Amino acid sequence: MDLKAKLIDISTGDAPVVLITRQAALTYDLHTADRVLLSANDRKVIAAVNTTDHGFGLRDDQIGIYIETALEIDIIEAAPVTITPVSKPESIKYIKKKMDGKELSDEEMRQIVKDIVGRNITQVELTYFVAACSIYPLSFGEIVTLTRCMSDTGVQLHFDKPMVIDKHCIGGVPGNRTSMITVPILMSLGYTVPKTSSRAITSPAGTADTMEVFAEVNLSVDRMKQVVDSVGGCLVWGGSVNLAPADDRIIRVERPLSIDVPGLMISSVMAKKFSVGGTHVVIDIPFGPGAKVETVEHAEQLRRQFVTIGKMLGIRVLVIISNGSQPIGYGIGPLLEAYDVLAVLKNDPSAPHDLREKSLMIAGKFLEFIGHAPRGGGRKIAEAELTSGRAYKKFQEIIDAQGRRELPPLARFKHEVFATAAGIVRAIDNRSVAKVARIAGAPISKSAGILLYTKVGSSVEVGDKLFAVYADNEEKLSTAVSFVATNNPFTLG
Amino acid sequence: MDLKAKLIDISTGDAPVVLITRQAALTYDLHTADRVLLSANDRKVIAAVNTTDHGFGLRDDQIGIYIETALEIDIIEAAPVTITPVSKPESIKYIKKKMDGKELSDEEMRQIVKDIVGRNITQVELTYFVAACSIYPLSFGEIVTLTRCMSDTGVQLHFDKPMVIDKHCIGGVPGNRTSMITVPILMSLGYTVPKTSSRAITSPAGTADTMEVFAEVNLSVDRMKQVVDSVGGCLVWGGSVNLAPADDRIIRVERPLSIDVPGLMISSVMAKKFSVGGTHVVIDIPFGPGAKVETVEHAEQLRRQFVTIGKMLGIRVLVIISNGSQPIGYGIGPLLEAYDVLAVLKNDPSAPHDLREKSLMIAGKFLEFIGHAPRGGGRKIAEAELTSGRAYKKFQEIIDAQGRRELPPLARFKHEVFATAAGIVRAIDNRSVAKVARIAGAPISKSAGILLYTKVGSSVEVGDKLFAVYADNEEKLSTAVSFVATNNPFTLG
Repeated sequence: MDLKAKLIDISTGDAPVVLITRQAALTYDLHTADRVLLSANDRKVIAAVNTTDHGFGLRDDQIGIYIETALEIDIIEAAPVTITPVSKPESIKYIKKKMDGKELSDEEMRQIVKDIVGRNITQVELTYFVAACSIYPLSFGEIVTLTRCMSDTGVQLHFDKPMVIDKHCIGGVPGNRTSMITVPILMSLGYTVPKTSSRAITSPAGTADTMEVFAEVNLSVDRMKQVVDSVGGCLVWGGSVNLAPADDRIIRVERPLSIDVPGLMISSVMAKKFSVGGTHVVIDIPFGPGAKVETVEHAEQLRRQFVTIGKMLGIRVLVIISNGSQPIGYGIGPLLEAYDVLAVLKNDPSAPHDLREKSLMIAGKFLEFIGHAPRGGGRKIAEAELTSGRAYKKFQEIIDAQGRRELPPLARFKHEVFATAAGIVRAIDNRSVAKVARIAGAPISKSAGILLYTKVGSSVEVGDKLFAVYADNEEKLSTAVSFVATNNPFTLG
Repeated sequence: MDLKAKLIDISTGDAPVVLITRQAALTYDLHTADRVLLSANDRKVIAAVNTTDHGFGLRDDQIGIYIETALEIDIIEAAPVTITPVSKPESIKYIKKKMDGKELSDEEMRQIVKDIVGRNITQVELTYFVAACSIYPLSFGEIVTLTRCMSDTGVQLHFDKPMVIDKHCIGGVPGNRTSMITVPILMSLGYTVPKTSSRAITSPAGTADTMEVFAEVNLSVDRMKQVVDSVGGCLVWGGSVNLAPADDRIIRVERPLSIDVPGLMISSVMAKKFSVGGTHVVIDIPFGPGAKVETVEHAEQLRRQFVTIGKMLGIRVLVIISNGSQPIGYGIGPLLEAYDVLAVLKNDPSAPHDLREKSLMIAGKFLEFIGHAPRGGGRKIAEAELTSGRAYKKFQEIIDAQGRRELPPLARFKHEVFATAAGIVRAIDNRSVAKVARIAGAPISKSAGILLYTKVGSSVEVGDKLFAVYADNEEKLSTAVSFVATNNPFTLG
């Protein structure tokens, strides 16, 4: 049946929705929450049906197109839209097969990814898939197929280089901004590094949020390609280029339970590396209490999986297992982290030692891995790029190529927290630090966050400053400070 | 923060939704798809946030209340609504525990049910729970707790009788309308039978749909109580009385994958029996190819579970395992099934033998089970109620008490299907019969469906009528007929 489009200014933040009158629903035997296939010109999208009596002055021959729906099919006001009821997608039976604990064939996995990307399956159906993959771990074969399909169904980039380098950190440690230092180092040595990063989901800043303090990070694929071709690499937000779009939908249903399904996580990471044509990839797995990976055994297990999947995909993978037991650097939150990165790149003597050392260690080991340096000789080469100022210069080139932004001022409101007893700093809890910084407004407020004055192992006296909380307004500051009162991230002993 | 209510005429068919302007979202640091807790007067509800620029002329100090949200909190236009961001509900960690394959304590299960009913958990979160219960079967203890909690969180009825009888069929066999015969028989013998039934979800008719041909079935709890007090029982739609509301939400996430989690199914059935104060319950489990339960082993396993759970709840349960290999009676679809029921109750010689026999068998066995008849003597007593016309009279009393409706006319369009070869009817496939009847318009069109002229075991000649398809319009009839061309439910041999 055909209806006329009426664009409706409502955003649901997720699945496409259309609005029809209750009379139209009766006429076409549709029900609220039914799914329909919309076709207009050559584009198709599956949307959920909402109904109304008179909302938006909708007529019975019209169909209201919400914002997410309009983004999927390119449609103008009053254009004809054909709607047909949707039958169950084929992949439902493969999801049920996975729920029964059985291994999926390549074809079955491919169909599931196709239906995820085509939005043929709902969030509930996708959740069954994620739950099944969480309970019955994916086989290596399944992970490889899933990775290939996630990459195939999105944009793929090709650089005409014998070696394309990429880096990924599996996250969970606040302030861990090594990419912003190792990527310029590797680029200044002549390597191609088309790096995409994520924004914070539950943390106070992702690399994309921190990079955005300096430069534009929402680049289209074409712009990203241009930047990489002109300066040899980039530091952009992965969400703005359409790499492995199935992954976004999978992550969205993992988030409510904060689950991280190992096979899905590996596919998620590797699909993006595969999509940019990565030939050599370094994966940083920080472990420690309060990090995503808590034990070295778990980190070792992930290492084996990443390396194996890499081999099966034809990508050489170096996994670095690092100390993730406390935040890296002094600043937590986009602007405060940006200061740390800048201090390291500018060889500022007050630059955080741990961020500098970790960045050099990763760059050095990777140079050995790719044969640029002999075993044990990588760090020295990396350090030379840094101390010479060449890495800093490269970083400035990236900023100019992506589009320079003016640094925001520091947050107006600040509260300092002091030691109430003397002792050694035994621990700084990653989760509490992240929580306080988020309550203070990070990452939405670029300048909000935490500044650590001391790190694990230092001794403090009564009245010494431990850290400061920064916020844009007094309300957020006081909420963050009262959270600290009962959840101080510092353990002295 | 406080906003003013603006009622919005949009129905989403599921979770409560509110609409705020993009400016208000920025001000309050809310994001599209966030969940917020709304409080107005003493009522609370959790709703998802949609955003708009100018939709419905919404102002920044207003909050748009969709229909499902308005149903949950009793609010009038322009009334103040307080909204607060929602943190993760406690039951998320118990759902994760179940995902890890661990048994839940009573308190944990209780919290999950509370959060399901209070809509504190989303469909995605609930799906993880259902997936986990599907993969890691619930223990008897978990099922009993779940049953109690599902009942506790809904309406409960109390009848001042020593014995309250109930009946349930787990379904999957078209035309299986025994309740409409056994309930009047048991009532006419003086028993209290507060029977609630379901409407069709994926079948051509539920008992509630068929009963609705004769009488109102959408009764409030108070009206249901009145009816049972006045005539001794009822045959109403369970969805209109608020028994075990958690169950509806669980079933909604089971449906997309057509999964039936045994532990959840038993809880779903028993919670409703518990809520009406049932002391003696008969459960009919039809099995056979194309029925919900395909093997006798599976039926026996369910029998043991039902009986055990019944004992733990203090309910005596009789399970009858019956032949579900072909449809019961001649008619499929609300009106055509209603004709069959009426024919049996009126002792019409042309009444379907199988429906009559099965109803008498169930009533008879149940009379023996509750001690009304000696072993082997139940059927005779049941048959006396039927042949005497007392059961029919009781059925008329129920109809009058619930509110009599006028029978609709037979569907205008009819297509007969003939045997193209001579032979014996070897099988009539339940699923194809259901599908054809639904395509023809059942249960939305009361008079649409199928009329079987012959059953399994009969011999037919070329040109003999096998069945007729009834529909309200030619389009539906022709779609159903072309489906039959490739999916004829009859197997001759």
